[in-house]
Amino acid sequence: VSVAVIVVDMIRDNVETPGHLGMAREAKAIIPGIQRLLVTARQKGWLVVFACDSFLPGDFIFQGRMRPHALRGTPGVEVIDELRPQRGEMVMEKRRMSAFFRTDLDLTLQVHGIRTVVVAGISTPVCVLMTALDAVSHGFRAVILEDCCAAHSPEVHQATVDLYRNTALRPLLSVLTLDQLISSDPEP
Amino acid sequence: VSVAVIVVDMIRDNVETPGHLGMAREAKAIIPGIQRLLVTARQKGWLVVFACDSFLPGDFIFQGRMRPHALRGTPGVEVIDELRPQRGEMVMEKRRMSAFFRTDLDLTLQVHGIRTVVVAGISTPVCVLMTALDAVSHGFRAVILEDCCAAHSPEVHQATVDLYRNTALRPLLSVLTLDQLISSDPEP
Amino acid sequence: VSVAVIVVDMIRDNVETPGHLGMAREAKAIIPGIQRLLVTARQKGWLVVFACDSFLPGDFIFQGRMRPHALRGTPGVEVIDELRPQRGEMVMEKRRMSAFFRTDLDLTLQVHGIRTVVVAGISTPVCVLMTALDAVSHGFRAVILEDCCAAHSPEVHQATVDLYRNTALRPLLSVLTLDQLISSDPEP
Amino acid sequence: VSVAVIVVDMIRDNVETPGHLGMAREAKAIIPGIQRLLVTARQKGWLVVFACDSFLPGDFIFQGRMRPHALRGTPGVEVIDELRPQRGEMVMEKRRMSAFFRTDLDLTLQVHGIRTVVVAGISTPVCVLMTALDAVSHGFRAVILEDCCAAHSPEVHQATVDLYRNTALRPLLSVLTLDQLISSDPEP
Repeated sequence: VSVAVIVVDMIRDNVETPGHLGMAREAKAIIPGIQRLLVTARQKGWLVVFACDSFLPGDFIFQGRMRPHALRGTPGVEVIDELRPQRGEMVMEKRRMSAFFRTDLDLTLQVHGIRTVVVAGISTPVCVLMTALDAVSHGFRAVILEDCCAAHSPEVHQATVDLYRNTALRPLLSVLTLDQLISSDPEP
Repeated sequence: VSVAVIVVDMIRDNVETPGHLGMAREAKAIIPGIQRLLVTARQKGWLVVFACDSFLPGDFIFQGRMRPHALRGTPGVEVIDELRPQRGEMVMEKRRMSAFFRTDLDLTLQVHGIRTVVVAGISTPVCVLMTALDAVSHGFRAVILEDCCAAHSPEVHQATVDLYRNTALRPLLSVLTLDQLISSDPEP
Repeated sequence: VSVAVIVVDMIRDNVETPGHLGMAREAKAIIPGIQRLLVTARQKGWLVVFACDSFLPGDFIFQGRMRPHALRGTPGVEVIDELRPQRGEMVMEKRRMSAFFRTDLDLTLQVHGIRTVVVAGISTPVCVLMTALDAVSHGFRAVILEDCCAAHSPEVHQATVDLYRNTALRPLLSVLTLDQLISSDPEP
Repeated sequence: VSVAVIVVDMIRDNVETPGHLGMAREAKAIIPGIQRLLVTARQKGWLVVFACDSFLPGDFIFQGRMRPHALRGTPGVEVIDELRPQRGEMVMEKRRMSAFFRTDLDLTLQVHGIRTVVVAGISTPVCVLMTALDAVSHGFRAVILEDCCAAHSPEVHQATVDLYRNTALRPLLSVLTLDQLISSDPEP
């Protein structure tokens, strides 16, 4: 296989917590899309990686207005039940926005011969975007899967995907729907 | 000092080349703003860093539609004359979008006791944004200086700063004008 | 606290496997020393981190003469029973020799305000040394704890600690016995 | 080509300074060996990289007993005249021991299709060793070229190469003389 799917931050503390209502509501709305993505990925034998926030209480990220959440070792960092990883799929902890920052994800993708990284999850303008752009920095083609990503409002999500749909990085970075991804045959 | 200014990609090949007209025109328009930023920074003793694209011919970044440019060792990677670095200011080569990727910028900022990183230059949604978000990942507060940044169109620039003006990362990430930055006194 | 103890690679596949007899025998011989180190660390409130090999089957590291072992997700990557981590102590996977390579260990140490990193485990000239030198690269003082480290032979272990006992990096890098560490009071 | 030669720290401040007599004397003694290595590399079209210490005055590395030296922007960081880089060869600044730490050397080697990294220069147990082991961590075969490396004493150099001549990493890490390297044909 040469395609990896990275499902970003679809964990209990982000999707099921009433603390940030907008984000939780929008995240729930993309669950069916990601489920369909996972069915496709498993059929095609793509690598599936769940990249999950996993913070320590004193992390810099919490020195702004963000409340401590997704703390390492708590149930809040688990992937939500609706997207439960299958045996053999990777669940990795990340400490910052990008799934590549201070992780061995690049080594893992290289070992599997991955060339294209498909990014889904939340939130589109921060962790999804950073993971996609960092994938390009590490030498992988990146796809932001627009109907499998969400932000705390539909407007912010839409503005983000529209911004990155057609950059100078294209086609190393692209924005596609799941149907477009499947029909574009990323692994000829 | 505890503030650093990072001027991103204001080099000959990006600002003076007729190859990508929109970007060059918009980049020229922010030169006066960045000049004023540099005057302020030098008066206040802030650290000034010029982070400049510096690619090798076969770099992955050129496997899309982007033409080879800003090649290491060529005049095209020099900071434009209008923003000429002063003696003692840092000029660093970067290989990807973020000024932190595969560079020692984090070590340099730490040695200087920097806590706030102010980002200016081009382009707002790619190298400026990645540098600002990566600054936060490395434990620095980041300011995107909206009247000292540009994209290939005013609309894209505006959409980007509007997207990141009010995220969950605030105030670790903020979007300010130069006047707002000065009056906010980032180094009390 | 400002001291962290890193116990390197004391996992089942390294200590209990008959495949590499010399290493297993020498590793067993330092278990009492590391147990005493852990008692000290817990009394003093030092941070305790177990850094454990955790490879994928196709990893580059296996393209030489080293047989696949310590594979992620298998019982072989667990810390040996004699050194069982206590609740709240960190167990981290590493993919290469240094415990800092492609991990968030540097962020973890920073969040805890660590200034001195004490390294124990196996093997002295490879994973222990790389972790200690990388600690210095990341801005931490490093101590190789000579009576809590081992190599595949006593001679190789001894030659290594003798080589690094008195380098230009001293005292950022030092070689101490556990008694010397305790009496040197690394956290005044 | 698939071979790169990394000449480590053969700069004025390390080789020509009377401050650390032993190191300077030993470093001078390997100049003819490295000259012969460079002739070979240029004939065979191998990539040649000079990796040079380039510190800032407040760097952590100077918080021990090491005096500030090899400061960025000073003549002391230049490669010595006897090994003057040719046009097109790379000269890179490094901030710590390994030539890979916070540099883009891994990207450069990848772009050139390098598979084997040959390390020469000073000092054998610190910067040479760290660069070689880090090369392996990044997925390259590494060769420590024993007659083109030196430490502050012949005994320390010899003890180091003897330690790493036959590790579990072999042949991903090897210790060879220049003659052995040439006859081993690293690029079949």
